[in-house]
Amino acid sequence: MSIVVLGTVALDTVRTPFGKRRHMLGGSAVHFAMSARIFTQVNLVAIIGSDFPQKYIDFLRQKGIVLTSLIKDSGRTFKWEGEYKGDLNTALTLNTELGVLSAFRPVISEEEKKIENIFLANVDPDIQRHLLEHMQAPKLVALDSMNYWIHHKCRSLLQLLKKVDIYVANDQEARSISGETNLIKAAQYLFSRGPRMILIKKGEHGVLFYSDKFIFALPAYPVLRVVDPTGAGDTFAGGFMGYLSRVKKINQVSLKKALAYGTVAASFNVEGFGVERTSRINLRDLDNRLRRFRKCVLF
Amino acid sequence: MSIVVLGTVALDTVRTPFGKRRHMLGGSAVHFAMSARIFTQVNLVAIIGSDFPQKYIDFLRQKGIVLTSLIKDSGRTFKWEGEYKGDLNTALTLNTELGVLSAFRPVISEEEKKIENIFLANVDPDIQRHLLEHMQAPKLVALDSMNYWIHHKCRSLLQLLKKVDIYVANDQEARSISGETNLIKAAQYLFSRGPRMILIKKGEHGVLFYSDKFIFALPAYPVLRVVDPTGAGDTFAGGFMGYLSRVKKINQVSLKKALAYGTVAASFNVEGFGVERTSRINLRDLDNRLRRFRKCVLF
Repeated sequence: MSIVVLGTVALDTVRTPFGKRRHMLGGSAVHFAMSARIFTQVNLVAIIGSDFPQKYIDFLRQKGIVLTSLIKDSGRTFKWEGEYKGDLNTALTLNTELGVLSAFRPVISEEEKKIENIFLANVDPDIQRHLLEHMQAPKLVALDSMNYWIHHKCRSLLQLLKKVDIYVANDQEARSISGETNLIKAAQYLFSRGPRMILIKKGEHGVLFYSDKFIFALPAYPVLRVVDPTGAGDTFAGGFMGYLSRVKKINQVSLKKALAYGTVAASFNVEGFGVERTSRINLRDLDNRLRRFRKCVLF
Repeated sequence: MSIVVLGTVALDTVRTPFGKRRHMLGGSAVHFAMSARIFTQVNLVAIIGSDFPQKYIDFLRQKGIVLTSLIKDSGRTFKWEGEYKGDLNTALTLNTELGVLSAFRPVISEEEKKIENIFLANVDPDIQRHLLEHMQAPKLVALDSMNYWIHHKCRSLLQLLKKVDIYVANDQEARSISGETNLIKAAQYLFSRGPRMILIKKGEHGVLFYSDKFIFALPAYPVLRVVDPTGAGDTFAGGFMGYLSRVKKINQVSLKKALAYGTVAASFNVEGFGVERTSRINLRDLDNRLRRFRKCVLF
């Protein structure tokens, strides 16, 4: 089953100890799509400016991403510039240029409104709500956000949480929105606000999954050469949602496997700049690494 | 098979969001012994002062710990005072009183010299070496250290590493001694200095195990109520070494299970002050939690 992903398509400038890339293809929707496409058709809902290179559009099409609802506007494309130092765990944002993103109102096709799996990547919660209201048959809705919206649009975000199945947060965000330092307590708080599943991403430390029925924890797949972690969280979500969109039943077994797929997808992402690595892998690559990962955590 | 543990027996004063305890029984050798005793006989090698309460000696004996080589000196017992705030991940040391520890030279009985399993908990590397030189049949030797020795006795520590099988470090220490930020690279560096197994403890984020044959990663057991994390690392090591001392063969399977036992032992430790929790559990408690933990990470 297809997935609609709402998010950003960006031009990223990134510096890490391994080098620098200028205006490479990035953004939450792109990173999500690049791993979700391995499992299913991905319909991307985003906005780009008139400066967006045609070669990136061709590239996304070539990867099978459906771009019907990728709006092209007359302004400039959203740009992010960041740097990673030391253990590459934290991005230092050097510059953000919203461009066309500031006036973004997603418009999607009638056909896409019927898609049941929806990932609302990190954008303004009002834009996320706007899209969700137009979806006609939401079955599995996941939402990601970030500290900026937690602080500036907390009420909108909390309202929206009531309408989603899965809340995806990183550990800092989970702590920030809940006011709890213990991550399980933070997850319990988020759970109490509506979503029946809480997924807390901990970067190099893996992931914690919480629902009222069970708690699940996985370490990250051990990666020797972390080149650029940008987009790892969205790549994780793409693998997770991509796999879930294909299973018959969402239960303990399929959720765990989805988390494992998300983990190995993210491990590929960090091994290259932008989508260098993830754009070149297929299900066999994920499965091979999944087998190695299983050996790594099985006791 | 028995284990000799060299380390500290301390009087700990600890403040956490859950309360305060003054001069409770603590120290690396005590925490280690409290989980290792569940698997095997533990011979404790440490020093205490004349102010050490008899009730704690009785308590240790009652728990089956062999105290033949617990030296009582005329000075004051080693004392540590610390505080935990926020997510309880980092201890803030308020005061340290070395007391009798500063002149500690371990003396062990002839019988104990034949014990094959040895855990050198965090004390001066010269003291660790001194003990190791007196052991007649070391078969499995693990060593823990800390930043202070890494900075002040780096050469002694590196010399000692050549003589141990397992180096146990936390993530900060592994990064500090290796100069590497990537933990796998840090483990590779440590491996190159002698030990054939490297165990990196990451607190609430679990553990990374490295050898030339395989890498193993486990998250921490999810604990809702972290009351006092003091001694969690040594409790981990106690469960790990305790289990290994009982297996016929140290291989991938037994090492993984040992890490899992260490993980659940540590999870009990953090649920209470000092050894409140770990002193009251048995193998059945560990096994029950091990089963739940397996469900938590299995996919």
